[in-house]
Amino acid sequence: MRRVITLCTDFGLTDHYQGAMKGVILGINPDAVIVDITHSIPEFDVLSGAITLNNFYSYFPPGTIHVGVVDPGVGGERKPLALEADGHYFIGPDNGLFSLVYKRSGKLNVREITNKEYMLPHVSSTFHGRDVFAPAAAHLSMGVDLNELGDEAASPLRLGLPVPEAEGGKVTGEVIHGDSFGNLLTNIPAELVKRGSLVYVDGISLGIPRESYGSVKKGELLSIIGSSGYLEIAVCQGSALDTLGPDKKVVTVITE
Amino acid sequence: MRRVITLCTDFGLTDHYQGAMKGVILGINPDAVIVDITHSIPEFDVLSGAITLNNFYSYFPPGTIHVGVVDPGVGGERKPLALEADGHYFIGPDNGLFSLVYKRSGKLNVREITNKEYMLPHVSSTFHGRDVFAPAAAHLSMGVDLNELGDEAASPLRLGLPVPEAEGGKVTGEVIHGDSFGNLLTNIPAELVKRGSLVYVDGISLGIPRESYGSVKKGELLSIIGSSGYLEIAVCQGSALDTLGPDKKVVTVITE
Amino acid sequence: MRRVITLCTDFGLTDHYQGAMKGVILGINPDAVIVDITHSIPEFDVLSGAITLNNFYSYFPPGTIHVGVVDPGVGGERKPLALEADGHYFIGPDNGLFSLVYKRSGKLNVREITNKEYMLPHVSSTFHGRDVFAPAAAHLSMGVDLNELGDEAASPLRLGLPVPEAEGGKVTGEVIHGDSFGNLLTNIPAELVKRGSLVYVDGISLGIPRESYGSVKKGELLSIIGSSGYLEIAVCQGSALDTLGPDKKVVTVITE
Repeated sequence: MRRVITLCTDFGLTDHYQGAMKGVILGINPDAVIVDITHSIPEFDVLSGAITLNNFYSYFPPGTIHVGVVDPGVGGERKPLALEADGHYFIGPDNGLFSLVYKRSGKLNVREITNKEYMLPHVSSTFHGRDVFAPAAAHLSMGVDLNELGDEAASPLRLGLPVPEAEGGKVTGEVIHGDSFGNLLTNIPAELVKRGSLVYVDGISLGIPRESYGSVKKGELLSIIGSSGYLEIAVCQGSALDTLGPDKKVVTVITE
Repeated sequence: MRRVITLCTDFGLTDHYQGAMKGVILGINPDAVIVDITHSIPEFDVLSGAITLNNFYSYFPPGTIHVGVVDPGVGGERKPLALEADGHYFIGPDNGLFSLVYKRSGKLNVREITNKEYMLPHVSSTFHGRDVFAPAAAHLSMGVDLNELGDEAASPLRLGLPVPEAEGGKVTGEVIHGDSFGNLLTNIPAELVKRGSLVYVDGISLGIPRESYGSVKKGELLSIIGSSGYLEIAVCQGSALDTLGPDKKVVTVITE
Repeated sequence: MRRVITLCTDFGLTDHYQGAMKGVILGINPDAVIVDITHSIPEFDVLSGAITLNNFYSYFPPGTIHVGVVDPGVGGERKPLALEADGHYFIGPDNGLFSLVYKRSGKLNVREITNKEYMLPHVSSTFHGRDVFAPAAAHLSMGVDLNELGDEAASPLRLGLPVPEAEGGKVTGEVIHGDSFGNLLTNIPAELVKRGSLVYVDGISLGIPRESYGSVKKGELLSIIGSSGYLEIAVCQGSALDTLGPDKKVVTVITE
């Protein structure tokens, strides 16, 4: 059955790991359409994986199966999960990787993968991506019902993400993620940034949010509503991360 | 409709950007065959993107749709383009990225993408890859006529590329690109390099062009007609870039 | 014809090389399913390529065509090969890249690719991946008989891989590969590691092999039967390579 399965992992691109997952999927569903999102989530960085998943999944057609593997606890007590949320399916470890998906979804159906019928015959203790998650995704893509994979997982782990504070005419948030261009994503949603607001990062004034990266001179700092719908700090044709450094950064928006 | 869409960007492999583009494409054309060329064009390096595009596109079947995104001017005044050239389709920003394609093509049909029907409902000012270029490619792949995307773009931007000079028995060119092996691509086409020519790089004699990398000892410099049909400077099982350094390099061919 | 073709090369992800191979394949077989395994095998590191191939191929459906290109001798005297082994097809240079496949296969059918009908019209001396290996794979995927590609290649090159020594209650092996997490793969198969064995690396005691990475504290060394069925040295949520350094490492298992 033709069905899209995306892969988002921290396995890197040097080794065979994500390749072996693809083989397992195609062995079960020869018509699966496998889409690489990234295999370069920073190692064991569950929050980074959660933010990345949240940034792409909703652009795929409903019913897409997203496999996320950032799994420092593999082989230990963390549960393997398969879930339906916001019209999509997600498969991966129960360590908070899907926290942002839970937040956006109304009805959730979260299952612990326990049915050995939908795993490889031998499950290693170090590579559930290949032995548990890939086969679960492939079987789902063949029409197996989510509930067949295992019992309900009562309270999946949710990461405690920092929430911006809005008080009077002032919103205080922080940088929660950087991309490879050095753009810095904040936790301040567009809705909290009124037209004409003034933006500050660690006290440095960036003026009003700009319409495009090119609204300031090359090398200058700016703020902009980024493509994920959150306020972003950037440098025109440069890196805000390099300009501002890696330390925690407070972002303030004065809205009136 | 089954149709090949290639992606060549500077988005890197760490973030969700190219993944979101793939989701948009599959949402519009579930049967699209998406092919990753590279997402590691050096950031904002339009010339490097232009050379890379030129090196792969003609190996794809005619009618393939190539999406190129190296786009420092996103959200500014540069136009989004969709064009037909040399039997292929190309989609991306009007900043010179398709310069080498224009040179190889007889009849050109270049359109400015303005028809909002073929964009995402909300177009961000920072991510036209997802909001403009991916949907345009997907709609083209579904059979939408190129001319439906927008009006003709009168004079698309062309990069001024250095041209080798041939005078008497001497051709003078330069290195215009390096690959990840450290091989250095020159702008001197095979046709200008007669059998028995002598090659010099910054005055260092490399003798005649070699038949294979292994024609000299490991670690030695050589010149060779590379796989793109241009003279290349290389080191046997090593890096010419490391050996010669990153500065601009003049390459001379004495043909008689 | 729908058929899986995997790609495993040292071409890197920056250049057009693997992209051009994909174009050639889709030009010959528009229904080929191309799967990227990795293009980041360390340059010219044939052993690393051989180990990687061995780690993923058997997870693909029988009949899959695996193209491996780590090819420092391109354009020289090494033969281009196409072969059937262990129910799969392999295509690449005769330099030992398929050594581990030969070891696992009973009947082997190894052919030297000489039939120009199944190459590109112009074969460069620097890029057989595009001009020889990709077209051979694509034609195979269209149903061309392996024997059509060329005559039998009598004795393909096999790398001399270090074999562990078992004597009395002691097995002595070594680290043969590291992955991007810094996990160190040894040449000691699970069968030689009895329950309750004691493991030493360069004389450092690691105790018994563990059940999971999390069986020791974060940052501590451990040994474990890895997902490839061999003893592995790792650090809980860290890198054994960083902890132990890059020098050759002797691994001893005391089994009684």
